[in-house]
Amino acid sequence: MKKLVLTVMLAMIVLASTGCKQRKVQQKVRRYGMVIGVKEEKLDEYKKLHAAVWPGVLKTIKDCKIRNYSIYLYQLDDGNYYLFSYFEYTGDDFKADMDKMAADPVTQRWWELCEPCQIPLSNRKEGEWWASMEEVFHLN
Amino acid sequence: MKKLVLTVMLAMIVLASTGCKQRKVQQKVRRYGMVIGVKEEKLDEYKKLHAAVWPGVLKTIKDCKIRNYSIYLYQLDDGNYYLFSYFEYTGDDFKADMDKMAADPVTQRWWELCEPCQIPLSNRKEGEWWASMEEVFHLN
Repeated sequence: MKKLVLTVMLAMIVLASTGCKQRKVQQKVRRYGMVIGVKEEKLDEYKKLHAAVWPGVLKTIKDCKIRNYSIYLYQLDDGNYYLFSYFEYTGDDFKADMDKMAADPVTQRWWELCEPCQIPLSNRKEGEWWASMEEVFHLN
Repeated sequence: MKKLVLTVMLAMIVLASTGCKQRKVQQKVRRYGMVIGVKEEKLDEYKKLHAAVWPGVLKTIKDCKIRNYSIYLYQLDDGNYYLFSYFEYTGDDFKADMDKMAADPVTQRWWELCEPCQIPLSNRKEGEWWASMEEVFHLN
């Protein structure tokens, strides 16, 4: 009986420490920085939309393995407003997950509201809406 | 003797699970998105510098409780190049930690090389070099 108790406790210690390690392993991610223009006359609408993003949209983002997703706004010296996003992708097939996101009807209705607020950049890559930027530095 | 063993093991289980919780608590951070211009003729120099940032500079950044720090580069439709940074601050007094960073001699020598590459934005807040942007959305 004592042996059983000792065995169970040892197992609990191993499981507890393994749980911690797994959380550490999950820190390995691919980072993305994106940029797009936003229309001055649509600033309020865009902010209101993003102050209360639909739960179905948030769920799809998480289902597509995107985490730690932030969007920032700033007016640059050309007088125009721009949105900058940073997010982390924890999956193994970014294109497949983005195709899955694009196929979600709720996300499609959400984009129908957001896209008229935005001005995509002329030098974005083929197939992009937001333009993906070049990472020149990272420190964990 | 058996009781002692059981007590030690229970303590180990508690400590292990507490370790996990602490890692979770540390997820609470303040996020910063910053932007600044970069001179086209200084792009290569800026990229080379940031491909091999001095260890002393990296140590000071970490000592000042900055983590997950990325810098992105993109040419916008006005033809100018911009740098966008995202980082997370895990301390309790951002100004104090930034003052500590600014007081570090190695960091000061580093900034003497980086700042001539950059064009700070005219509408940045008082005391800023990089301009801090407005966060309009975040999803953990």
